[in-house]
Amino acid sequence: MSKEKNMIKFIFEQHNRLSCIFRFNNVPRLAPQSVAEHSYRVAFLSMLIADDLISRGVEVDKLKLLEMGMLHDIEEVVSGDIIKILKQGKFKKELDKMNEQNASGILCLLGTKGDEYFALWKEASTGTTLEAKIIGFCDMIDRIIYCVKESHLGNNYLRELLEFEAKKLHEWIPILPKLTSFIEELTNYALLYLRGDPDILKGINRAVRIYDYKVDE
Amino acid sequence: MSKEKNMIKFIFEQHNRLSCIFRFNNVPRLAPQSVAEHSYRVAFLSMLIADDLISRGVEVDKLKLLEMGMLHDIEEVVSGDIIKILKQGKFKKELDKMNEQNASGILCLLGTKGDEYFALWKEASTGTTLEAKIIGFCDMIDRIIYCVKESHLGNNYLRELLEFEAKKLHEWIPILPKLTSFIEELTNYALLYLRGDPDILKGINRAVRIYDYKVDE
Amino acid sequence: MSKEKNMIKFIFEQHNRLSCIFRFNNVPRLAPQSVAEHSYRVAFLSMLIADDLISRGVEVDKLKLLEMGMLHDIEEVVSGDIIKILKQGKFKKELDKMNEQNASGILCLLGTKGDEYFALWKEASTGTTLEAKIIGFCDMIDRIIYCVKESHLGNNYLRELLEFEAKKLHEWIPILPKLTSFIEELTNYALLYLRGDPDILKGINRAVRIYDYKVDE
Amino acid sequence: MSKEKNMIKFIFEQHNRLSCIFRFNNVPRLAPQSVAEHSYRVAFLSMLIADDLISRGVEVDKLKLLEMGMLHDIEEVVSGDIIKILKQGKFKKELDKMNEQNASGILCLLGTKGDEYFALWKEASTGTTLEAKIIGFCDMIDRIIYCVKESHLGNNYLRELLEFEAKKLHEWIPILPKLTSFIEELTNYALLYLRGDPDILKGINRAVRIYDYKVDE
Amino acid sequence: MSKEKNMIKFIFEQHNRLSCIFRFNNVPRLAPQSVAEHSYRVAFLSMLIADDLISRGVEVDKLKLLEMGMLHDIEEVVSGDIIKILKQGKFKKELDKMNEQNASGILCLLGTKGDEYFALWKEASTGTTLEAKIIGFCDMIDRIIYCVKESHLGNNYLRELLEFEAKKLHEWIPILPKLTSFIEELTNYALLYLRGDPDILKGINRAVRIYDYKVDE
Amino acid sequence: MSKEKNMIKFIFEQHNRLSCIFRFNNVPRLAPQSVAEHSYRVAFLSMLIADDLISRGVEVDKLKLLEMGMLHDIEEVVSGDIIKILKQGKFKKELDKMNEQNASGILCLLGTKGDEYFALWKEASTGTTLEAKIIGFCDMIDRIIYCVKESHLGNNYLRELLEFEAKKLHEWIPILPKLTSFIEELTNYALLYLRGDPDILKGINRAVRIYDYKVDE
Repeated sequence: MSKEKNMIKFIFEQHNRLSCIFRFNNVPRLAPQSVAEHSYRVAFLSMLIADDLISRGVEVDKLKLLEMGMLHDIEEVVSGDIIKILKQGKFKKELDKMNEQNASGILCLLGTKGDEYFALWKEASTGTTLEAKIIGFCDMIDRIIYCVKESHLGNNYLRELLEFEAKKLHEWIPILPKLTSFIEELTNYALLYLRGDPDILKGINRAVRIYDYKVDE
Repeated sequence: MSKEKNMIKFIFEQHNRLSCIFRFNNVPRLAPQSVAEHSYRVAFLSMLIADDLISRGVEVDKLKLLEMGMLHDIEEVVSGDIIKILKQGKFKKELDKMNEQNASGILCLLGTKGDEYFALWKEASTGTTLEAKIIGFCDMIDRIIYCVKESHLGNNYLRELLEFEAKKLHEWIPILPKLTSFIEELTNYALLYLRGDPDILKGINRAVRIYDYKVDE
Repeated sequence: MSKEKNMIKFIFEQHNRLSCIFRFNNVPRLAPQSVAEHSYRVAFLSMLIADDLISRGVEVDKLKLLEMGMLHDIEEVVSGDIIKILKQGKFKKELDKMNEQNASGILCLLGTKGDEYFALWKEASTGTTLEAKIIGFCDMIDRIIYCVKESHLGNNYLRELLEFEAKKLHEWIPILPKLTSFIEELTNYALLYLRGDPDILKGINRAVRIYDYKVDE
Repeated sequence: MSKEKNMIKFIFEQHNRLSCIFRFNNVPRLAPQSVAEHSYRVAFLSMLIADDLISRGVEVDKLKLLEMGMLHDIEEVVSGDIIKILKQGKFKKELDKMNEQNASGILCLLGTKGDEYFALWKEASTGTTLEAKIIGFCDMIDRIIYCVKESHLGNNYLRELLEFEAKKLHEWIPILPKLTSFIEELTNYALLYLRGDPDILKGINRAVRIYDYKVDE
Repeated sequence: MSKEKNMIKFIFEQHNRLSCIFRFNNVPRLAPQSVAEHSYRVAFLSMLIADDLISRGVEVDKLKLLEMGMLHDIEEVVSGDIIKILKQGKFKKELDKMNEQNASGILCLLGTKGDEYFALWKEASTGTTLEAKIIGFCDMIDRIIYCVKESHLGNNYLRELLEFEAKKLHEWIPILPKLTSFIEELTNYALLYLRGDPDILKGINRAVRIYDYKVDE
Repeated sequence: MSKEKNMIKFIFEQHNRLSCIFRFNNVPRLAPQSVAEHSYRVAFLSMLIADDLISRGVEVDKLKLLEMGMLHDIEEVVSGDIIKILKQGKFKKELDKMNEQNASGILCLLGTKGDEYFALWKEASTGTTLEAKIIGFCDMIDRIIYCVKESHLGNNYLRELLEFEAKKLHEWIPILPKLTSFIEELTNYALLYLRGDPDILKGINRAVRIYDYKVDE
C-alpha cells in the first residue's frame, strides 16, 4: 500500500481511537477523560515546563518533548485503558513488555518514521533523559488536574487520590530540582483546594474572571 | 503573584477549561468532541504531515508547528465554542478581533512567554507561513475525522458536512502542493466511506485488527 | 413550496434544533440545559409572573408574553449557543446585529406570520415594553434555577455565578417594582441555598414531599 | 407562607423537576427528551397550528392554548414518566384518576390561580374543546419529531413507532378537518423520511443551509 | 415457533430491555441505574444474606432466592419504570394487578417454564415466604447503596431519601430477626456516611485500598 | 472487625464498583455496559439454559451455576476492565495469574464464605465442569446481545465483532451438544440481524408488541 494510504489508515482507523478510550476505568467518574485529552494536556504542560526550565538556563529539547507528549500513550490504541495501579504492581514487567509490543505494533504502520516514533515512545516510558522526566512529571500533574476537576464537579471518589498524589509530588523535587518552588506551590494549591480555601475556589469557579472581562471594556 | 503561582492559576483555572468546551455546538452529536481532544489531534496530525513533508525535502519548523497546534484554539477558554460558520460569515472581521483580544487576554497571564505564545496563536490564525497552512489543513482533517466517527456511530446529521468538506479538500492542493497525492487519497477515502465501501468499513471496524493481534502470537 | 411544506420543514429541520443546543457552553456542567428546556421555563415563569401582576392590577398582554417566551432564543437555531458574557461585552453591537439577521433569516420561512414572530422576537430582545421586561426577568430567574440545580447535583463551578446573579437581582426592582417582595424573597432563597440552609435543602430534596404524598392517602 | 414564598417553592422545588424527567422510559434512546423540552415543543407547535387555523378563519383561543401547552404534563412532577401505552391500556381509568390527583396536588400550591391552571390541565387531558384537540394533535406531532430525531441519530428502536404514528395521523383529519392538507403532508414527510428520500435527508442534515448562510453575504 | 426461537426472541427482544430502563425516573441522577444492574445486586446481596443466615442455622432455599432475584422486576420489560411511591400509594391495588398481568404476559413466551418463573415472580412480589422477605430486604439495601453512590458523586437530591430509608431499616428487624445486628450496622453505616464520618469516607474512596494493593507486593 | 461490618464494607466499598466499570473500553460505544449489568445477564441466561438442559434430561447444578454467574467477573473490582483480546493473547498466563490474585484478594474480605466464593470464581474461570461451560457460553451470548443492541442503536463499530462472534458460535456445539439447535438458531438470528432481515428487525423494534398489549384489552 502507498505511504499515503498507510498514513490515512493509521489516522482514521487506529490513532483516532484515543478519543474513545477513557482513563481511570474503575473509578466512578462524572466527566470521563479520554487519552486524547490527556495527551493534549501532557504535551501542553510539558511545553510550559520546558519554557520555564529554559528561562532558568536548563537545556531542554522541546521538539523531542512535544513529540513524546503526542506519543506517550499510543499503545492504548491496542490495549485500551489499563489502570495505573496494575501497571505499577506485581505484574509491571509483563505489562511493560505487552505495552512495548503494542506500541511497536501500532507504530510500525508508519514505516521508518514509525520506528523513530517508537524510539520516542520508549524514551518517554523508560524515563532516564530530562525530557522523559518532564513527561512523567506532566503525566502526574494531569492526574492532579483531573482529580481537581472531578472533585469540583462534586465527585468525592477522587478526593483521596488527589490528596495522595499531591502529597507524593515532593518526590519529584530531587528528579527536577529546578522546579522545586513550582512543585511546592502546586502541592500547596492542591492541598488548599482540598481544604476548601476560598481564594482557590474563587479562582476555579471563574465566574469572577468572566465578569472582569465584561468590566474591562 | 509569583511566576509559579501564575502558571498554576493558568493551568488549573483557565487552560483546563478546554476539556469542557465541546465543538459543533449546534449539531446533534453522539460523542461530543472537546477542544482539548481536537487540539491534540491537530498537533499530532501536523507532526505526521511535517515529517512527511520533511521526507520530501521541504523545510518545516516542527517545533513551531507543534506549539501552534497546542495554542491554536486557546481563545475558546474565554469565548467558549462559536460555530465555524459564524466565524466565516458576514461578521468574520468582528469575531476575529474578539478572538484576538480573548487569546491575548488569556495568554498575558503567562508574562513575556505568554506574548510569544500569542504571536504563535496569531500566526496560526492568520495563516501565511507554511506552518500556519499546515495547522489550517490539519484543522480541516480533524473535522473530517470527527464527521467519520459520528457517522460511524450512526449519526446521520454529519454525513452531509462530511461530503461537503471532503469535496472541498482539493482546494488545499495549490496551498500545499507537495501533499497532492495525500489530499487525493484522503478525499477518496472520505467519499468511499460515505458510499459504504466494504474495505473502508472493515478497516474502521477494526475487529479484524484486534483478532490479527491474537493470531500473531 | 406550499405553506404546509414550509411549516413542516421549519418544524423538522430548523426549530427542532433547539433541543440539541446546550447553554453555558464554556462551563463544566453535569446536566446540560437545552435551549428548548430553557425556553419552556422562561415561558412558564412569565405566565406565573404575569398572573401575579394581573392579580395586583397590572395590565399584561399574556398572549404576547407567552409567544415572546416561545420565540425569544429562536436565532440560536442558526448561531448555536454563544455565551452570555460575549453578547454583553465589547462586541454587543455586532453580535446583536448578527442575531437579528439570524432570527429574521430563520423566521422568514414562515411567510407573513414569520414577520409577526420576528417582531415579537425583536420586542423580546430590545426590552422596552412591560412584556419584554418580564421575559428578561424570567430569563434571569431561569439562570438562577439552573445554577441551583447544578449546584445541588454537586457541581461547584456554578456556585459563584449563582451568587453573582442572586446579588444582582435587586436591579430588577426599579424595572418591575410590583415584584419587589417576590424579588427579595427570591434573592433570599438563592442566598440561603448557598449557605446550606436546612429548610431550603429539605424542600429541594423533596423526598419528604414524596412521602407526604404517600401519607396523604 | 406568603404567596411569593409558595411561588418560589413551586418553581424551585417542584416545577423544575420537569427538566429531569425523561420520556419513553422503556425504549433505548440516544438523546433522552425531558418533559420540559416536550412541553416547549407542544406549546410552540400549538402556536403555529393556531395561527394557521386563524388564517383560515377558525376561531382559536391562543392564550388558553399556550397555557394548556405549558401545563399539560404537569402531573409528571409527582408521578414521573409513565409510558403512554400503559396510560392508554386496560388501566387507563385508574391511571387517569391518579394523574388528576397528582396534577391537582401539585397545582394547589399556587392557590386560587392553581385552581385555574388545574382547570386548564383538565381541559387539555379530557380533550373536547378545539384547544384540547390541538394540544392532543401537537403532542402526537412531537412524538413524530422525536422519533425522526432519534432515527436520524442512528437509533433503529424508534423507526417502527415512527411508522406506526405516521400511519395513524390521518385519524386526526375528521377531528381537525381544516388541517387536512397539513396532516397529509406530515404523513408523507415522515414516510418519505423512513424510506430514505434524499431531499428529506438533505433538509434534515442542514449542512447545506449553514453554507447557504455563508454564501448569502 | 420452536422453543429455541422463542427463547431467543425472549432474550433479544424482551429481556434485554432491562438494561435500558432506568430507575428513580423522577429524580435528578448522575449515574442512572438500570433494572439489570439493580437485579444483579439484589440477587448478589440475597446470596450473601442467605449464606449468612444459613451459617446461623436458618434454612433458606438459595436456588429459589437467586431465581427470584433474577426475575423480581421482569414486569418492567413491559411497563418501564414506575416510581416506587406510586406503587405504594393509593393506586397500589390497580398497579399491582397491572404488574401481575405484565409479568405473566412477558413470561408466557417461555412456555411451561415461564409459568414456573411467573410463580417465582409472584412469590417475590407478595412476600410471605422467607425468600420473598429476603428479596424485599435486598431491594431496600440496593436503594441505600444507590443513594450512597449518588451522594458520593455529589448529588444532593438523594441524601434525604437515603436518610429516610436508613431510618426505616429497623422495621426489617421483626421480619428478619436473625439479621438484627447486620441491620443495625447497616443503619449506622448509612447515617455515619451522611454525617461525613472520615473512616467511612476513606473506605468508600478506596484510593487507599488501591495503594494497599501496590504495597502488598 | 465484626463479620457484619466486613460484609457491609465489601458491599458498599468494593462490590458496588461493578456498576461503575464498563466493558469494551477501547471501542466507541453508545450505551456502555457495566460489569454489573453483564453479570446479571450471564446469570439470567445460565438459568434459562440450565432449565432447558434439565428439560432434556441433563443434570445441572443450577444453584452453583447462578452463584458462578454472580461471581465470575468479581476480580474486576480490583483490576477494572481489561479488554478480552489482551486476556486471550500472548500474556494470557500472566493476566490469568493477576486476575486470580485479585479475585482472591477481594473475596477474602468475606472470610471462610469468601473462600468458597473464590472456588466458584476459579471454577467459572478454568472451565472444565458443565456449569463452567455454561457460564462461558452465556458470557459469549451476552457479547452478542450487546453487539446487537449497539448495532441497533446505530453504532457500526461493533458490527464486525458481532459477525465474528456469531460465526464462531458453532465451536460451542461439541462443548454443549445438547444445545446444538439453540446454537444454530442463535447463529442464524445474529446473521439475519446483520443482513437486515425485516422480521428480526420488527421483533427487536418491539413497537408492535407494545401495541399488541393495547389491543389485548
